[in-house]
Amino acid sequence: MKSAKPLPAYLVQRYHGWKATSYQENRGWYRRLANEGQRPRAMVISCCDSRVHVTSIFGADQGEFFIHRNIANLVPPFEPDGDHHGTSATVEYAVNVLKVAHLIVLGHSQCGGVAGCIDMCKGNAPEMEAKESFVGRWMDILRPKYDLVADIDDSEAQARQLERHSVVISLENLMSFPFVASAVESGELSLHGLWTDIGEGGLECYDPAAQKFLPV
Amino acid sequence: MKSAKPLPAYLVQRYHGWKATSYQENRGWYRRLANEGQRPRAMVISCCDSRVHVTSIFGADQGEFFIHRNIANLVPPFEPDGDHHGTSATVEYAVNVLKVAHLIVLGHSQCGGVAGCIDMCKGNAPEMEAKESFVGRWMDILRPKYDLVADIDDSEAQARQLERHSVVISLENLMSFPFVASAVESGELSLHGLWTDIGEGGLECYDPAAQKFLPV
Amino acid sequence: MKSAKPLPAYLVQRYHGWKATSYQENRGWYRRLANEGQRPRAMVISCCDSRVHVTSIFGADQGEFFIHRNIANLVPPFEPDGDHHGTSATVEYAVNVLKVAHLIVLGHSQCGGVAGCIDMCKGNAPEMEAKESFVGRWMDILRPKYDLVADIDDSEAQARQLERHSVVISLENLMSFPFVASAVESGELSLHGLWTDIGEGGLECYDPAAQKFLPV
Amino acid sequence: MKSAKPLPAYLVQRYHGWKATSYQENRGWYRRLANEGQRPRAMVISCCDSRVHVTSIFGADQGEFFIHRNIANLVPPFEPDGDHHGTSATVEYAVNVLKVAHLIVLGHSQCGGVAGCIDMCKGNAPEMEAKESFVGRWMDILRPKYDLVADIDDSEAQARQLERHSVVISLENLMSFPFVASAVESGELSLHGLWTDIGEGGLECYDPAAQKFLPV
Repeated sequence: MKSAKPLPAYLVQRYHGWKATSYQENRGWYRRLANEGQRPRAMVISCCDSRVHVTSIFGADQGEFFIHRNIANLVPPFEPDGDHHGTSATVEYAVNVLKVAHLIVLGHSQCGGVAGCIDMCKGNAPEMEAKESFVGRWMDILRPKYDLVADIDDSEAQARQLERHSVVISLENLMSFPFVASAVESGELSLHGLWTDIGEGGLECYDPAAQKFLPV
Repeated sequence: MKSAKPLPAYLVQRYHGWKATSYQENRGWYRRLANEGQRPRAMVISCCDSRVHVTSIFGADQGEFFIHRNIANLVPPFEPDGDHHGTSATVEYAVNVLKVAHLIVLGHSQCGGVAGCIDMCKGNAPEMEAKESFVGRWMDILRPKYDLVADIDDSEAQARQLERHSVVISLENLMSFPFVASAVESGELSLHGLWTDIGEGGLECYDPAAQKFLPV
Repeated sequence: MKSAKPLPAYLVQRYHGWKATSYQENRGWYRRLANEGQRPRAMVISCCDSRVHVTSIFGADQGEFFIHRNIANLVPPFEPDGDHHGTSATVEYAVNVLKVAHLIVLGHSQCGGVAGCIDMCKGNAPEMEAKESFVGRWMDILRPKYDLVADIDDSEAQARQLERHSVVISLENLMSFPFVASAVESGELSLHGLWTDIGEGGLECYDPAAQKFLPV
Repeated sequence: MKSAKPLPAYLVQRYHGWKATSYQENRGWYRRLANEGQRPRAMVISCCDSRVHVTSIFGADQGEFFIHRNIANLVPPFEPDGDHHGTSATVEYAVNVLKVAHLIVLGHSQCGGVAGCIDMCKGNAPEMEAKESFVGRWMDILRPKYDLVADIDDSEAQARQLERHSVVISLENLMSFPFVASAVESGELSLHGLWTDIGEGGLECYDPAAQKFLPV
């Protein structure tokens, strides 16, 4: 592997700062985490977006959340076909090995993946339809929900709504995994759907009775 | 979606605390991030493990890192077959849309995914060989590197070494993506391989000249 | 005192969140509590165990419960010998100064202190017999009750039963304090014995007529 | 035990409310805590005072803190004399069995125990000098620090200062326990001294360099 480069100096410097302060003050805890293994209470599936920091929002520290991040916080349907399924592997590990008690899907406003999905569904992004478009094929997971927002004229409102649907379809797909459904039914696992507004710092939670997201 | 539950009260309380403090103090920045879009300098691919907080180690704030997290920080080879490839989609989005300048793969000690891969390669985990094992099929990505550590007698040392190889194979696979190779060659993107020791707070960077990881 | 360290950052952040929300919303009440002093209705003696939150179970807020927590929620017998008796001091303060109306002893399942007591009584923990074992000497308080459970074959059932006896012996020892007995006789104070099942969320109350714990 | 009474109805009602809501929503986590045991990151020693809720201030939930509460958050010196030492037992269990990474002593304003200690030291509370006064004998632990505040004229300021000293003497006494000193020296355990102002919601942390408490 000849292409790797040294770490940029600003990151080296910050790392040494962390090592001398946060690490030093919490050394006992980090060693216990290393020796005894992790025991997170919850798994969070959130977007890769650099503006979404689930640990900040919830004041979480090392050891609390098992976190998977992908484009648009999507979970594909259960497909045990022997291929590489990175997201399904994270869910399997969290539920079957770590036995987390909560599985939280966190969507967010201004999601680039969801915006691309809308462009694609409207016929404005033919390059995303190509077999070679990984983002396009990934956003196919959300596609079945586009019909539910197709009639919303305001494009901002439409995007916000499809972002919320990206959470709902992930929750629905999660229930297609037999081990998730069984853990939910036995009460060992509970599912939670959240959506956060980046600019306003808002947080909404999916309410199954109301069938919509309500402010927390 | 009938199975969703309300958010646990302690998380609701912490969220409101964040909203009233961190959010409030940084509102201007969060609104700019929402209005103008993200512009992260780097993408980080790290493990879902609850003990690995790349934002802590590097003192990163909202907007700095586009972060993908999966089991064992693996990148599969380039396979444009039209299926859902969540990890490949994150790389495509980061390199082609966000045009990040750095792509960092961060491995870590005590990785449960890597430990499972070793068990599987030694024949101690037949259940992971099943087509239905998402974790097993995902760890197949790392399998070609097992031969390089098969002779290490000390099982701890063996695991630490395969963890480092999980970073190297991801870097190698990244170069199999034409758009990554091209951005690297043009100097617009640089790749970095890191491995962190959770208990000791250590950080090592892959050095292509030495062909091994050296302390930062 | 040179060994003190700064507070971990995640706790600092959560504190500021609390200050900006819960504190702010209840400032008037907290100021009254500060200016006029506390006037709790009940004292609770519970275990230090991190899984037992008496304020959660009873929806109690600042000012409601005067809470003493020690290993296995034990009260030693009345021994006015001039030594430091931390638990006896809490009872004296609650009954004589605060004049609480209720004194609740709350036991719980999976109690590590009670498990240690059983090991010790069975001869499986010789290190707990040492004069230097603070936990051993503290669990001596419960020792007289071991005979009542010695014949229970199932070790889980045995532990659950001795946990309930830890509540009963504390209530019995409380009555050996002249000021407790006198307040109980005059009707100014009532004693209550509870036991909670952590995993199932159950709550049982000691019924003197039935001489056993019954679900609440 | 004939004196026990049924639980007051208002507490029964609140318990059933908790069981139907918080318990129900977090059942998976509570069952894991029951089955796998607690693994708290920190021990907190705080006062029994009904106005001090460490779990609220730090947004902590079941499983996070191992909490000992006594009068004036005091730790007596190391005295392995074979007597019942409830506080020493809690420290031994937290450090040697649970291996907590942080030990936090939390003092507070308007502490009744500290006020009693001042009265006693000034000769205004002869009844607290009696061998039979459990509170008096317990507050003897703090007595060596009275000289440091004896000259403060303003009685409020004097009390606030002695409250802070109650934290410092506890930290000092903790270091007299060989197993605490050894865990601190090896970096497995860190000690923290805090003082909170109930009415103002303030929080101060002891700074060993400055030799005083500074706002967090």
